[in-house]
Amino acid sequence: MYRTHTCGELRKENIGEKVTLSGWVQLKRDKGGMIWIDLRDRYGITQLAAERTQTDSKLIEKIDNVNREYVIQIRGEVIERYSKNDKIPTGDIEIKIEELNVLSESETPPFTIIDNTDGGDELRMKYRYLDIRRNPVREALLLRHRMAQEVRKYLDNNNFVEVETPYLIKSTPEGARDFVVPSRMNPGEFYALPQSPQQYKQLLMVAGMDRYFQIVKCFRDEDLRADRQPEFTQIDCEMSFVEQNDVLYIFEGMVKYLFKTVKGIEINDKFPCMPYSEAMEKYGNDKPDIRFGMTITDITKNVKGKNFPVFDSAEYIGGICLKNGSEYTRKQLDALTDFVKMPQIGAKGLVYCRYNIDGTLKSSVDKFYNENDLLDFANKMQSEKGDLILILAGDKESTLHALSELRLKLANETGLRPKDTFAPLWVVEFPLLEWNEESQRFHAKHHPFTSPFDEDITLFKTDPGKIRAKAYDLVINGVEIGGGSIRIFNKELQETMFQNLGFTREEAENQFGFLMNAFKYGPPPHGGIAFGFDRLCSLFGGSDSIRDFIAFPKNNAGRDVMSNSPSEISKEQLDELGIKIK
Amino acid sequence: MYRTHTCGELRKENIGEKVTLSGWVQLKRDKGGMIWIDLRDRYGITQLAAERTQTDSKLIEKIDNVNREYVIQIRGEVIERYSKNDKIPTGDIEIKIEELNVLSESETPPFTIIDNTDGGDELRMKYRYLDIRRNPVREALLLRHRMAQEVRKYLDNNNFVEVETPYLIKSTPEGARDFVVPSRMNPGEFYALPQSPQQYKQLLMVAGMDRYFQIVKCFRDEDLRADRQPEFTQIDCEMSFVEQNDVLYIFEGMVKYLFKTVKGIEINDKFPCMPYSEAMEKYGNDKPDIRFGMTITDITKNVKGKNFPVFDSAEYIGGICLKNGSEYTRKQLDALTDFVKMPQIGAKGLVYCRYNIDGTLKSSVDKFYNENDLLDFANKMQSEKGDLILILAGDKESTLHALSELRLKLANETGLRPKDTFAPLWVVEFPLLEWNEESQRFHAKHHPFTSPFDEDITLFKTDPGKIRAKAYDLVINGVEIGGGSIRIFNKELQETMFQNLGFTREEAENQFGFLMNAFKYGPPPHGGIAFGFDRLCSLFGGSDSIRDFIAFPKNNAGRDVMSNSPSEISKEQLDELGIKIK
Repeated sequence: MYRTHTCGELRKENIGEKVTLSGWVQLKRDKGGMIWIDLRDRYGITQLAAERTQTDSKLIEKIDNVNREYVIQIRGEVIERYSKNDKIPTGDIEIKIEELNVLSESETPPFTIIDNTDGGDELRMKYRYLDIRRNPVREALLLRHRMAQEVRKYLDNNNFVEVETPYLIKSTPEGARDFVVPSRMNPGEFYALPQSPQQYKQLLMVAGMDRYFQIVKCFRDEDLRADRQPEFTQIDCEMSFVEQNDVLYIFEGMVKYLFKTVKGIEINDKFPCMPYSEAMEKYGNDKPDIRFGMTITDITKNVKGKNFPVFDSAEYIGGICLKNGSEYTRKQLDALTDFVKMPQIGAKGLVYCRYNIDGTLKSSVDKFYNENDLLDFANKMQSEKGDLILILAGDKESTLHALSELRLKLANETGLRPKDTFAPLWVVEFPLLEWNEESQRFHAKHHPFTSPFDEDITLFKTDPGKIRAKAYDLVINGVEIGGGSIRIFNKELQETMFQNLGFTREEAENQFGFLMNAFKYGPPPHGGIAFGFDRLCSLFGGSDSIRDFIAFPKNNAGRDVMSNSPSEISKEQLDELGIKIK
Repeated sequence: MYRTHTCGELRKENIGEKVTLSGWVQLKRDKGGMIWIDLRDRYGITQLAAERTQTDSKLIEKIDNVNREYVIQIRGEVIERYSKNDKIPTGDIEIKIEELNVLSESETPPFTIIDNTDGGDELRMKYRYLDIRRNPVREALLLRHRMAQEVRKYLDNNNFVEVETPYLIKSTPEGARDFVVPSRMNPGEFYALPQSPQQYKQLLMVAGMDRYFQIVKCFRDEDLRADRQPEFTQIDCEMSFVEQNDVLYIFEGMVKYLFKTVKGIEINDKFPCMPYSEAMEKYGNDKPDIRFGMTITDITKNVKGKNFPVFDSAEYIGGICLKNGSEYTRKQLDALTDFVKMPQIGAKGLVYCRYNIDGTLKSSVDKFYNENDLLDFANKMQSEKGDLILILAGDKESTLHALSELRLKLANETGLRPKDTFAPLWVVEFPLLEWNEESQRFHAKHHPFTSPFDEDITLFKTDPGKIRAKAYDLVINGVEIGGGSIRIFNKELQETMFQNLGFTREEAENQFGFLMNAFKYGPPPHGGIAFGFDRLCSLFGGSDSIRDFIAFPKNNAGRDVMSNSPSEISKEQLDELGIKIK
């Protein structure tokens, strides 16, 4: 037996016991007369001790030969520590070493196995198995484990059935971002890896499974941005005989359950629901962080006609108001101006107005607006003495985008986005269709099976862009955590939808054939949702990066630097598959 | 709201309530004055009723228009049934229809949605979403769900951490049966889909995760035999600081827990352990069904020297004894002879000996053996009056194989393999190496990281074929359910192993490089196991086929006949991937 206890287990009550422990040498401190070793495993750290003069010389020699990250097994007696360590649960005791076996040696690791390691990102990825030994990464993976268990517990308790859908599926003509898999048994033919199990979960509803879920890997072969992975994990769910509110109710319940069981946070209030249009007007984007206000006010009508050409020529002028920001220095304001002028933000300039504590107002456009004008704007924006008003102008879409970015930057700078506060929000009433300039036709904003609002169906004939969808996103702290929709299950409506998306009947058949076929045999009303599990875990873990919550992530080029994959394969293998490299 | 209750929920206590139900029309019976509909959902069947003369004519028209597999929503009052149906939980009540909406219509399904359907295999697969509506398939998937939840509960309670390992991994030179995935972002390079997460789970042990599990899809691009799938699911586990007994203890516990929670079966006894050599000698194969005896007796030494050339020239002669089989007719014995002569069984003939109730013995080799001789054999085989002795001769390996097949056939015929009896068994002490005639070298029987018995290590120099491995299989009812091993974690031993397998250092590096590299930094002693989850579910479900326990299985050619995949992909897609079809 390699151990009687783990390294996180022994307490005062165990004093006097003879124990066997195994683990990694975290640290050895040699203070002349005394040698201490911190022995580490997944469960904690236990201090080992040996007194040079009172220990057998062979054992001392063994202890002296031990180095960091060696795996050792020791036997000894649990004794009370002279100087206790109240930072670790085993801090009251130590083990007096009586026997020591080196189970395996270690070369010096390429970076130190401590919380704030000296290893850079690439090195840590290359030696991921060492990186995982560090507390922050291990704890991220343990959190992910806990969340997966609790998700399943909640869904199981609510009658959801976990069904494994296939990974080798049909490649569809428009699946441009599909990973494909050549089939040796069917030369010249390919499977695709699923971008999501969307069609299968809808088939399961046709199949009468009523409530389905799966924590499942999905794949997308796209140019990676920071924090995107070619394989990622979804909590994928679908329900039958439901309307939008039924879906929101169940999954709001799931998120609350997770906060409670995993984070110990009780959220009693119903999550607020915000229409997409309101999110865009007030926050400038469809995933607002509502931990703080600083909402956008449209002052287009209020500021025109004073001969300030920038405003007079703008489609849209909007402002936000930073509470207690009137003392922002000129330098700080210049930095903000530089920020909004960055290409990815895209504004032309920034107008500010200080609403000073003494009630005076001072702006960068004093030439055009007197103090009364400024007070009008201030009132319109519900600004108070001591606030800073920031105004951007331009075409509506990009100005709202820039205001949103500015709002988030100010919030980050002023501590309005604390990682331990969580503000969930349902964004609803998304547009069903989006006009695509390039193809000069409408695209489905969500996917072509998303149901329109019943009362908006007549708009297909008059103003398709105005049709609202029974689609919903869950946003927490400005991060899109999940999204879904009620699906179309009516043949005629589905055909109208395909027509509006510019699909011929044949194209629709080609791309969605087996699902359309299934819909001939009594599809129930149904809807669902999918959560980005990597993202949800990183949110719960208080991190901005999903990588630490993935055991073996790939880098931004889609490479696994540890195993050096992807890689070339042999000519024989290519021959067997009936393919050639061009 | 589509429903107030499911179709499995209403009882006598609900009589008088107004309810709304939704579901599929299972059956409509029109008895002139009365119309009944069986309404079905995942949870059960509820009977609906309408009396022609007392129902509004528009409603009657709607009811008349409804057909099998239509999805309808009805509102009505729960009333007591005149003739109760004690076969279903809702059998005391029915709903008097007051309103009916057709939610969606159905064409006539290609086969009937009943337990014993008229649909053939191929048709059921093509319309799998209809097949799943049938009780047996739905129940198989619900059983699988239940088992997955209980597996995770047990492992979570035992400190196992669920870690998702990657699906896009490195293709290795010997991964001939790997599915590969071309990378668009890295043209000419490929990922592979994992045949198992073996190397990753060992890396997680190096990473200090201590106990890992995952219910995970694995992929193998091989010629499919009946009941093999190109993608299949494993319960994959690994533990650190363990010896073989620790692993067996934990996973025996898991299987007992599953039997108890899923099947209500308590197994208190420790699972028996049987060395591989004993399994081969007594049962003729390494996954014996021990629900019954009928073990093989080696009578090679007892039967030679009586001038019967078949026996005298045979390397091995073995027999089994069928209890109470002495009355097998000549015709039955001829059939058994035909059976053992089939090419896949491979025997040349069958010798029988009836040990009659009256104590006389009568054999097919009476010319060579008198009654005393026969009595000797009978005693050697612990045969009794009324038994039938069956003997095969030939080279040892194939004769044992044939005896094993004969034993199973007799057991099937005589009801010795009841589906509701479960006999788990650990098979242990597998040989570490297997001689391969073709390549004229040893291959690893399990895999190259499997640890040999400590006391057998010296045999590497003298008789490598005799080395026993710390490897184990869990066998239930003659089916291999799981298998695993204690791994080598010592560099020198690993090198000895590679040498014996004929790997050069470079080849080993190429194939197992990143794992070997990880082993430089303090690998802990570790071992693990993997269970075939599809197989385990079908065993629990009392089925010989795994297909019904997979939601969307592929056929024996690796095709999904529902979606018609794999399929051709477009030239543009091939171009983007930088590959060509040959």
